[in-house]
Amino acid sequence: MLKYFTAGDSHGAALMGILEGFPAHVPISENRINQILARRQGGYGRGVRMQMEYDQVRLISGIWRGKSSGAPIGLLIHNKSMHDAATVPPRTVPRPGHADLAGAWKYGFEDDFNPIIERASARETAMRVAIGAICQMLLAECQIEVVGHVRQIGSIQAPKLNLPTDELRRLIMQSPVYCADPITSERMVQLVDNAQKTGDTLGGSFEVITFNTPPGLGSHVHYESRLDARLALHLMSIPSVKAVEIGEGVKGSQQPGSQMHDAILVDSGTVVRGSNRAGGIEGGISNGQPIVVRAYLKPIPTLRQPLPSVDLATGVRTPAPYIRSDVMVVPAAAVVGEAVVAFVIAQALLEKFGSDTLPEIQEHLKFYRNKMKNRFPS
Amino acid sequence: MLKYFTAGDSHGAALMGILEGFPAHVPISENRINQILARRQGGYGRGVRMQMEYDQVRLISGIWRGKSSGAPIGLLIHNKSMHDAATVPPRTVPRPGHADLAGAWKYGFEDDFNPIIERASARETAMRVAIGAICQMLLAECQIEVVGHVRQIGSIQAPKLNLPTDELRRLIMQSPVYCADPITSERMVQLVDNAQKTGDTLGGSFEVITFNTPPGLGSHVHYESRLDARLALHLMSIPSVKAVEIGEGVKGSQQPGSQMHDAILVDSGTVVRGSNRAGGIEGGISNGQPIVVRAYLKPIPTLRQPLPSVDLATGVRTPAPYIRSDVMVVPAAAVVGEAVVAFVIAQALLEKFGSDTLPEIQEHLKFYRNKMKNRFPS
Amino acid sequence: MLKYFTAGDSHGAALMGILEGFPAHVPISENRINQILARRQGGYGRGVRMQMEYDQVRLISGIWRGKSSGAPIGLLIHNKSMHDAATVPPRTVPRPGHADLAGAWKYGFEDDFNPIIERASARETAMRVAIGAICQMLLAECQIEVVGHVRQIGSIQAPKLNLPTDELRRLIMQSPVYCADPITSERMVQLVDNAQKTGDTLGGSFEVITFNTPPGLGSHVHYESRLDARLALHLMSIPSVKAVEIGEGVKGSQQPGSQMHDAILVDSGTVVRGSNRAGGIEGGISNGQPIVVRAYLKPIPTLRQPLPSVDLATGVRTPAPYIRSDVMVVPAAAVVGEAVVAFVIAQALLEKFGSDTLPEIQEHLKFYRNKMKNRFPS
Amino acid sequence: MLKYFTAGDSHGAALMGILEGFPAHVPISENRINQILARRQGGYGRGVRMQMEYDQVRLISGIWRGKSSGAPIGLLIHNKSMHDAATVPPRTVPRPGHADLAGAWKYGFEDDFNPIIERASARETAMRVAIGAICQMLLAECQIEVVGHVRQIGSIQAPKLNLPTDELRRLIMQSPVYCADPITSERMVQLVDNAQKTGDTLGGSFEVITFNTPPGLGSHVHYESRLDARLALHLMSIPSVKAVEIGEGVKGSQQPGSQMHDAILVDSGTVVRGSNRAGGIEGGISNGQPIVVRAYLKPIPTLRQPLPSVDLATGVRTPAPYIRSDVMVVPAAAVVGEAVVAFVIAQALLEKFGSDTLPEIQEHLKFYRNKMKNRFPS
Repeated sequence: MLKYFTAGDSHGAALMGILEGFPAHVPISENRINQILARRQGGYGRGVRMQMEYDQVRLISGIWRGKSSGAPIGLLIHNKSMHDAATVPPRTVPRPGHADLAGAWKYGFEDDFNPIIERASARETAMRVAIGAICQMLLAECQIEVVGHVRQIGSIQAPKLNLPTDELRRLIMQSPVYCADPITSERMVQLVDNAQKTGDTLGGSFEVITFNTPPGLGSHVHYESRLDARLALHLMSIPSVKAVEIGEGVKGSQQPGSQMHDAILVDSGTVVRGSNRAGGIEGGISNGQPIVVRAYLKPIPTLRQPLPSVDLATGVRTPAPYIRSDVMVVPAAAVVGEAVVAFVIAQALLEKFGSDTLPEIQEHLKFYRNKMKNRFPS
Repeated sequence: MLKYFTAGDSHGAALMGILEGFPAHVPISENRINQILARRQGGYGRGVRMQMEYDQVRLISGIWRGKSSGAPIGLLIHNKSMHDAATVPPRTVPRPGHADLAGAWKYGFEDDFNPIIERASARETAMRVAIGAICQMLLAECQIEVVGHVRQIGSIQAPKLNLPTDELRRLIMQSPVYCADPITSERMVQLVDNAQKTGDTLGGSFEVITFNTPPGLGSHVHYESRLDARLALHLMSIPSVKAVEIGEGVKGSQQPGSQMHDAILVDSGTVVRGSNRAGGIEGGISNGQPIVVRAYLKPIPTLRQPLPSVDLATGVRTPAPYIRSDVMVVPAAAVVGEAVVAFVIAQALLEKFGSDTLPEIQEHLKFYRNKMKNRFPS
Repeated sequence: MLKYFTAGDSHGAALMGILEGFPAHVPISENRINQILARRQGGYGRGVRMQMEYDQVRLISGIWRGKSSGAPIGLLIHNKSMHDAATVPPRTVPRPGHADLAGAWKYGFEDDFNPIIERASARETAMRVAIGAICQMLLAECQIEVVGHVRQIGSIQAPKLNLPTDELRRLIMQSPVYCADPITSERMVQLVDNAQKTGDTLGGSFEVITFNTPPGLGSHVHYESRLDARLALHLMSIPSVKAVEIGEGVKGSQQPGSQMHDAILVDSGTVVRGSNRAGGIEGGISNGQPIVVRAYLKPIPTLRQPLPSVDLATGVRTPAPYIRSDVMVVPAAAVVGEAVVAFVIAQALLEKFGSDTLPEIQEHLKFYRNKMKNRFPS
Repeated sequence: MLKYFTAGDSHGAALMGILEGFPAHVPISENRINQILARRQGGYGRGVRMQMEYDQVRLISGIWRGKSSGAPIGLLIHNKSMHDAATVPPRTVPRPGHADLAGAWKYGFEDDFNPIIERASARETAMRVAIGAICQMLLAECQIEVVGHVRQIGSIQAPKLNLPTDELRRLIMQSPVYCADPITSERMVQLVDNAQKTGDTLGGSFEVITFNTPPGLGSHVHYESRLDARLALHLMSIPSVKAVEIGEGVKGSQQPGSQMHDAILVDSGTVVRGSNRAGGIEGGISNGQPIVVRAYLKPIPTLRQPLPSVDLATGVRTPAPYIRSDVMVVPAAAVVGEAVVAFVIAQALLEKFGSDTLPEIQEHLKFYRNKMKNRFPS
């Protein structure tokens, strides 16, 4: 089974990742991974810190002459700023909205929870993006595309667009906030500028869409096999994400059944759907429509006007320290979301079609897809 | 590690469940499980079918003289209506919103997807409720309470209430729709009656709250250890759930940071919080506040006015069959939600405090809780 | 991934099992499972207790019209003798060689470790045999055979035979001790008779061979993916097994390399091997030769001449109680061994060839096997 | 749950490892890891290649001021000799006894299975040794010791010794073949010298013993929870290991029950055992005696007098290539064996006593150990 594991502290030497169970013969490009890593570091609204230098991945193992070998793929991303733990002052005033307080209690670090901050930092998501980029290379060889984009910043929502994959990608690339609608994009930039001025922060939501997904990924047969449940786990594990939605999850809960479900039709001898309110998943299984998932992020908790807190060493009320300066990270989170969705889809794909070599998977998939096309007399 | 597995088809002989990794010496009451099972079957808006006979669990193993033995707990719930597979007519017209179509394709049942329906049915959740009830017995011995209640049906939302556990439970028990607010409850009943008349169906949302949860459950250190991610997996795996939210997840994504996060304060020498918008989880770790999660359900897809579909055997357009008659199942889903949350909390509890015997766990937990009380000079 | 879980106490109502991840469309015969269950209960050297009534499996779920449906297969085997826990006298004198002492300490049952005995009993292996029988039905559809037979009882060893599958099976079926060599079989029976007379017990070893196994099952890429490691886990988990060997593991460790390894040759354009001392696994991967594994069992620890023990309630020296009367269980263990090997091979097969439907697996496998045949000009 | 994952090819940039689930506050020494790594590279009978430079581990993450932080521990070991994949000639003649042939087939590398050799190499075990060394640091804080030593090389067996931990360690350190018996050690050296002269290779066996192991690790309740099964998986996954034995597994299978089992006695009010033929595990649970496991290694398959093989590109018979020059690796394997046993024991320890912080684990363990001492009036 495709699995991944990461290690790495925010100011340690490097982030590490291991991707295990990846099939052989998939072309892997370090350059392409780096491009996607750069997108995670970009996006309007980030503080000064991130702009200096871009992450570079090193593929340590599992690649032979530009293709995957079937062995675990080992990844390294060196950190640009390292702490010397010996000289870092202890942290004892926890920041609301962070792991500081709960982590200090859990791991017994009330006298200095620097070790909690080191790991709880969103820096860790850089490795997930690199791993997701590799999964996207497998999916691309199977003609499956995964695209993440920003749908909402603060109270500003982008309209739902129905665009072909390439056009969607092109519009996202042009937007400083990774939002496919140019007009909304401008309004989001203004909102961020205003928040910047008032010293406030913003949250929002992003959407990830998978195109040309074969039906039959995931399964209804057991709770942890369901594709929706697996997507929810991976999306909710992204720092700041506090809600996850498949298709029209929240809005759909308010609508009557007669207006919600997606008709089953036939077109040119092939089964098609009248709409995609289910977000491409029925009964925990992909149904062949684009998979559409959204994740909602809370606003960044670190504020110039600090929140009330307490010094854990003394019990004295002390304002929470102000550590970083981003106004919002929704665009970066969209890149992370794209990565984790790509991982989940790749994992389910390998379960269904075997997991040893790309040529075998491609052949199994082609045969399966063909069974469904032009099945009926038109 | 605490794990559970289920088997069972909707019209087979029985549902089966295995709960593995459960500690010894926890008092287990079959009666109490049956009471909770009856609540799953109840709730306003269910069709005639469910009212006839209540589920009864049989504890097959893992219990010795009324207490858990440490061995896997085997559970059986006999089905009240069984099919004779030999005489059931084949199903070839998939219902939108169900696993029918995707399942038929995945498992090669285009000529009769009865086997898909048998397993994809929400009947399976009865076993999860029984397993969750056992987990609640462990939690109760650790003074942790888990309460599920309905927050929304269709477009009618219940106000947020801030009630003590017992009062909350009492109000929920009195409501035909398991909603703690009596006035909203009445409005919900009316809405259901109207939908019944027009032949339409409804969705909604439920909320699960855990009280007296110790801080430090789950961990920020790896994505699949995070408590929020694990809760999301389990809640999203409930049939019909299409969105999951921790604390003020959706609304919070629209608010500025200055109005969202929960101040850290001291009261009587103990750290307390000024609010609980985070829903009791920060950095993927429980922070000692009540854990508050919501799940959003789509309206039931089976309608008296059937949706367009296609006969998979012939490619001919055919209306989707009308199989069951519930108008909405949000109250039942709230019972399932309570169960799966209880499971996740119990699993995380055993990770932190050891997993062999209740007396050891209680002692470890007591020592841990005491460390945090009256820690500072007032 | 194919997984299985069991529950059930020795004198509870039933044993339960769940087999999850099994592909759809595999023909399943309850009768055939029962025949194999009967073989587990048989074998020379068992006490009177086992002879009375044969186990009968009930397939509760996951089967539709005689074939697997892809859903979890739920199995039940009712116990023939049930305890009323309320009236069973407490056990406080642990038997050497059993889980009694360590289990009482671990789970806090020093005052009565009946609950430990209930689960530690080899009765539990009946369910594993049933699950393995289902896995063998999948393997049979892929022309893979798994055969277990007794190689040693006490100090009597059977010679190594090189027989076709059917002949091997026939000879085993004729032997009261499931040993393929008729002369050794007779000597084993005599040894058992002698032990019976002196009140002693015997151990031994069994061997499991898989025929027509495709190469490429398991993987060298990670420790827990290796086929040898997975076989070792499953074989060592059988009660009484204290050693596991692949091919000529123990003897081979004493030989020089020049006499140990299996030449790689070509015959009729196909790669073949000069011998099979490696037992069909190289680098943790099946190499296309028969997989040959052996497991060594300690003699049954319960003796008519009881071993010294201590009453855990009082600290007073007390002889261990004499509970059951088998002289040896090596034939039964061979049946269990066959079952767990079948499970491991089935699991690895599904990883490589996909896991949703038998027709897809058969097609993928056929294509893969053909690639290797008559590959080279003869 | 404590888990570990590795990546790394034999001639890639580095080996990587991630140890996840390790508790906070355990003192970690990089120097100590390096000392143990050096022992893996040593041992009489190794070729010239290994002598040049010793492995050095880098702890990339999960450590704060010399102690574990609870976050995943990331490890790197740089490789001393790197290949430039672009210039390495293709390998098409598989070596018997290696993953070459089966791996080439499985992963589709018949035209060049260099990628298989890169990962199947025992080089990978360096990372397991480093991870095991960290587990030993946790165990040492709990007064648990794990010692590996060589018991057999070729046909020469060391006598069973009954020594205190420190004395055993001292004797092993003095032996060029890591064998605690000085006289056997000399004979082993001679045997290796002879094999060297004749161009042959040797196998053997090693033993790992754990001292002061608390009873109650692992469990009888489910097959994959059993400590013996878990040890078997990890030991069998070491390259070249073909058999695994707990206590007197092989010899014990030939003995009558009356001579095999370990009496339960009382000494100074504490339960003790008359012997330890069970190897410290009964019913899959540690029983408080030293855990004693043995692993048997096949002789190294690469011989100066090459074995017959076939060129996979042409089908032409070609002698297997001669790649490396070790005569035997049993001492190195003993170091790997010590590491994987330490991992399994640490994993089971954390399951029983909680897994967040060392002080909590120590306190829980102390309380548990005390319950068993001087329990009865002498």
